[in-house]
Amino acid sequence: MDRSEALAFVQPHLTKSRFEHTIRVTDTAIELAKIFDASIEKAELAAVFHDYAKYRDKEEMRRWIEQEYLPKDLLMYHHELWHGPVGALLVKREIGLGDPDILNAIRWHTTGTAHMTILDKVIYLADYIEPGRSFPGVEEVRELASEDLDAACFEAAKNTISFLMSKNQPIYPDTFHAYNHFINVLVKKNWRQQNGKVGK
Amino acid sequence: MDRSEALAFVQPHLTKSRFEHTIRVTDTAIELAKIFDASIEKAELAAVFHDYAKYRDKEEMRRWIEQEYLPKDLLMYHHELWHGPVGALLVKREIGLGDPDILNAIRWHTTGTAHMTILDKVIYLADYIEPGRSFPGVEEVRELASEDLDAACFEAAKNTISFLMSKNQPIYPDTFHAYNHFINVLVKKNWRQQNGKVGK
Repeated sequence: MDRSEALAFVQPHLTKSRFEHTIRVTDTAIELAKIFDASIEKAELAAVFHDYAKYRDKEEMRRWIEQEYLPKDLLMYHHELWHGPVGALLVKREIGLGDPDILNAIRWHTTGTAHMTILDKVIYLADYIEPGRSFPGVEEVRELASEDLDAACFEAAKNTISFLMSKNQPIYPDTFHAYNHFINVLVKKNWRQQNGKVGK
Repeated sequence: MDRSEALAFVQPHLTKSRFEHTIRVTDTAIELAKIFDASIEKAELAAVFHDYAKYRDKEEMRRWIEQEYLPKDLLMYHHELWHGPVGALLVKREIGLGDPDILNAIRWHTTGTAHMTILDKVIYLADYIEPGRSFPGVEEVRELASEDLDAACFEAAKNTISFLMSKNQPIYPDTFHAYNHFINVLVKKNWRQQNGKVGK
């Protein structure tokens, strides 16, 4: 499936501004995929479809979560978190896109999680830093994103938790796990760099 | 066991300043126990023993965690978090204090957790707000503590997470669970208050 075909599938499901956001996320994801050696084709498709379920009816999403193999604890958290996992399900069922790498990147793009693949991180970050985004801390994440994918994801997760806490909002456990995981990754990286084993 | 007997057990294990902290925590815990109808006797003993293992050798604590029925994931986090669970174990083994309410309050006093008992919350808060403490946010928690135990614990958990994030430190999962749990409790309380069912 090429980009224009994918965009044609997605466009009817999105508002005009959300469709423009999707295009910016796609361009950003391709840039990041080039820097960090992810598959450009997969990054492109995952980005195009990342918000596929964004405007599904809340009750429809609730039914998918209840009936399908999706984590039930999602229902205890804000419905804004549902469109990633439900989107991965519906992109497979309705579009027939079965690539698990792409589906996982769609699944985790809002909450993040521990042990994300490079593609997962590219989509998570592209959604966070695309040029239309402007909120406190985004510029710092943008700068990190061209240098260190893990450091940028860590900052994004940390900002997200801080933002939610400033509004007394619950935080989905996978977001916490992402935060803790990236600390471990960065601590080990520093150790490796100090010991002369520098890697991306 | 009365207070002076308990203090005599604890004193050899603590520095002078930590022993003074323990006495302030004990007085604060008794005040809170009176306000929120917890057992004063249990609050007193839990407070006296809450830091019993604070100065145990790190490698000794590691062995207790490895050998006994204690959560192994503690070993992936800062050893400052170990003295609560290890303390509960050692207070039982070495002092012979078997009351599970007291032991649980000792266990959770640093990290907090979801579904704490009133006694757990009293000790968690007393340790946080005793008059010797001075750090950003403590005054707000002190004020809440005389009115609403859950709101005060929520603020304390939130401050703890913010503080650890400002230092890029990992956060123990039970602290996150405490944060999310107290949001749910407070949302339900507001609902009950709005619906005329006011309770502590």
